[in-house]
Amino acid sequence: MRVLGVDPGLTRCGVGVVEGVAGRPLTMRGVGVVRTPPDADLGHRLVGIEQGIERWLDEHEPEVLAVERVFSQHNVRTVMGTAQASAVAMLCASRRGIPVALHTPSEVKAAVTGSGRADKAQVGAMVTRLLRLDAPPKPADAADALALAICHIWRAPAQNRLQQAVALHASKGRTA
Amino acid sequence: MRVLGVDPGLTRCGVGVVEGVAGRPLTMRGVGVVRTPPDADLGHRLVGIEQGIERWLDEHEPEVLAVERVFSQHNVRTVMGTAQASAVAMLCASRRGIPVALHTPSEVKAAVTGSGRADKAQVGAMVTRLLRLDAPPKPADAADALALAICHIWRAPAQNRLQQAVALHASKGRTA
Repeated sequence: MRVLGVDPGLTRCGVGVVEGVAGRPLTMRGVGVVRTPPDADLGHRLVGIEQGIERWLDEHEPEVLAVERVFSQHNVRTVMGTAQASAVAMLCASRRGIPVALHTPSEVKAAVTGSGRADKAQVGAMVTRLLRLDAPPKPADAADALALAICHIWRAPAQNRLQQAVALHASKGRTA
Repeated sequence: MRVLGVDPGLTRCGVGVVEGVAGRPLTMRGVGVVRTPPDADLGHRLVGIEQGIERWLDEHEPEVLAVERVFSQHNVRTVMGTAQASAVAMLCASRRGIPVALHTPSEVKAAVTGSGRADKAQVGAMVTRLLRLDAPPKPADAADALALAICHIWRAPAQNRLQQAVALHASKGRTA
């Protein structure tokens, strides 16, 4: 499974591609940041995010886009930009028929470190270890994007089993 | 000036086109709602919003897109969807080189009713009167989109004078 993880943001949108399956060593295929100038107007920044995400989709052809589920409890100043950047990333993937999966920050932290309250340094350290990198990816947004992709690969089998159980239950209900 | 007003939302995204200049009677060119099913996944809903906005841009070729400035203080359940739908609308316009203008809900209410704290019925009544309609546009999202467009047409001259003053001041600063 090849997953593009996106840590959404207008100024720095982290992107990372991880390939692998749960229970086997994972491989990083790419990592980076899509940036837009803070002094540009909002519409042009969103166009910049779109162009950047499109390039990553073109180059890596991921099967899934995993993006951080944004909560409005977060910092009031940044939450709107995060929601807007994530909307553009989801739009780009869905337009191509690529499924979008959402994971909360605590799900991502728990997946890669074992604790939903781990700090950025701990996440960066585990991403480095799990992908056998020489150093933690910089900036933190890039490491977070890789963590999202890893989280998705590891959570996907459980999520698929759950969806299959729900579908089976629904089909039994219809035939009963 | 032809303005497409957008009252952003995932379930109902109000759209309305108004043509005219400040100080002259205004004309409604179109009004409606772009809807997406609440049970569809978020990515597909954003694609639905994009397709709907694109159709309105194709048909009416507005010179400006006026969209509600979203605040995160609003209802926590709906604010993320509002931010995401507005991001898609702004992206569609900016991609075509159409300028995007943001107006706060109280600016819009003050422009069309004289009070920044007017209720929906009052806004609907004034939109009906100002555009010489037979009845208030339904749903309220459609009326709000028209109010946004009217607000932009009426505020634009003041905003342009302000921008010209700032530009003049800046150029004097450079030549001094």
